[in-house]
Amino acid sequence: MVDILHRVGIHASPNAVYKALTEIEPLSTWWTSDTTGETAVGGVIRFRFGERGFFDMKVLELDPEKRVLWEVVDGPKEWIGTKVSWDLSPEGAGTTIRFKQQGWREPVDFMHHCSTKWASFLFSLKAQLETGKGTPYPNDFLISIDFD
Amino acid sequence: MVDILHRVGIHASPNAVYKALTEIEPLSTWWTSDTTGETAVGGVIRFRFGERGFFDMKVLELDPEKRVLWEVVDGPKEWIGTKVSWDLSPEGAGTTIRFKQQGWREPVDFMHHCSTKWASFLFSLKAQLETGKGTPYPNDFLISIDFD
Repeated sequence: MVDILHRVGIHASPNAVYKALTEIEPLSTWWTSDTTGETAVGGVIRFRFGERGFFDMKVLELDPEKRVLWEVVDGPKEWIGTKVSWDLSPEGAGTTIRFKQQGWREPVDFMHHCSTKWASFLFSLKAQLETGKGTPYPNDFLISIDFD
Repeated sequence: MVDILHRVGIHASPNAVYKALTEIEPLSTWWTSDTTGETAVGGVIRFRFGERGFFDMKVLELDPEKRVLWEVVDGPKEWIGTKVSWDLSPEGAGTTIRFKQQGWREPVDFMHHCSTKWASFLFSLKAQLETGKGTPYPNDFLISIDFD
């Protein structure tokens, strides 16, 4: 089992970061503009990327301003069953996010891609909260020649 | 043992990417402007980041346009002994880089940070080769509030 790990500091409150991870409209400002679904524990949030694909995330845990845990219940086969966690902690006047996607079965090529792509979306989240200018799909940063 | 994995596509030839990983002046355009040392196999390349710290990388393997392997011989204690590999493959008119930093002993907080920071430097490398505008230290993208 191999994990994707990231850590980013955002000049915004834990409350603002938490909202951006747990409410549909804020979620749609940094990952994909096509985000729908139910955000309460037990609900499924649907992240759509047009012809590129989709991820359905079941909300497993919500601890306001501290932690969000999702499980991938549908999407690319390599993703299904993986868990995505967001741990927030206050850092000065801002917030540090510790991010993990755990449960990858093998360090496949697609995992390398997703590691880098997650970083680009974390930077989109950071930009959205600090400047109001995130780059969600379909305006996301294209990091690859062959993959989306 | 846990690894940092990334994958990025660059609209530049394998030869251009290889040069950016194996020659002092091109290296200094995307990671740190303070890069010196010996780039042949067995040599040590010194990457300096002012008061933030440094990395000394021994060149273990060079396969032109295909692969570069470094071993960290001095720097932060968590990095020493880790190996940084760059595998290049042609992709259309460009190049895909598969990057690994292997040999981390524990998935410590600093590893999460370095995973994300490596992504930002890969994007700097991509920007440098595609637009001539990399963001090496001291003009690098600051991803954290507390770490450099």
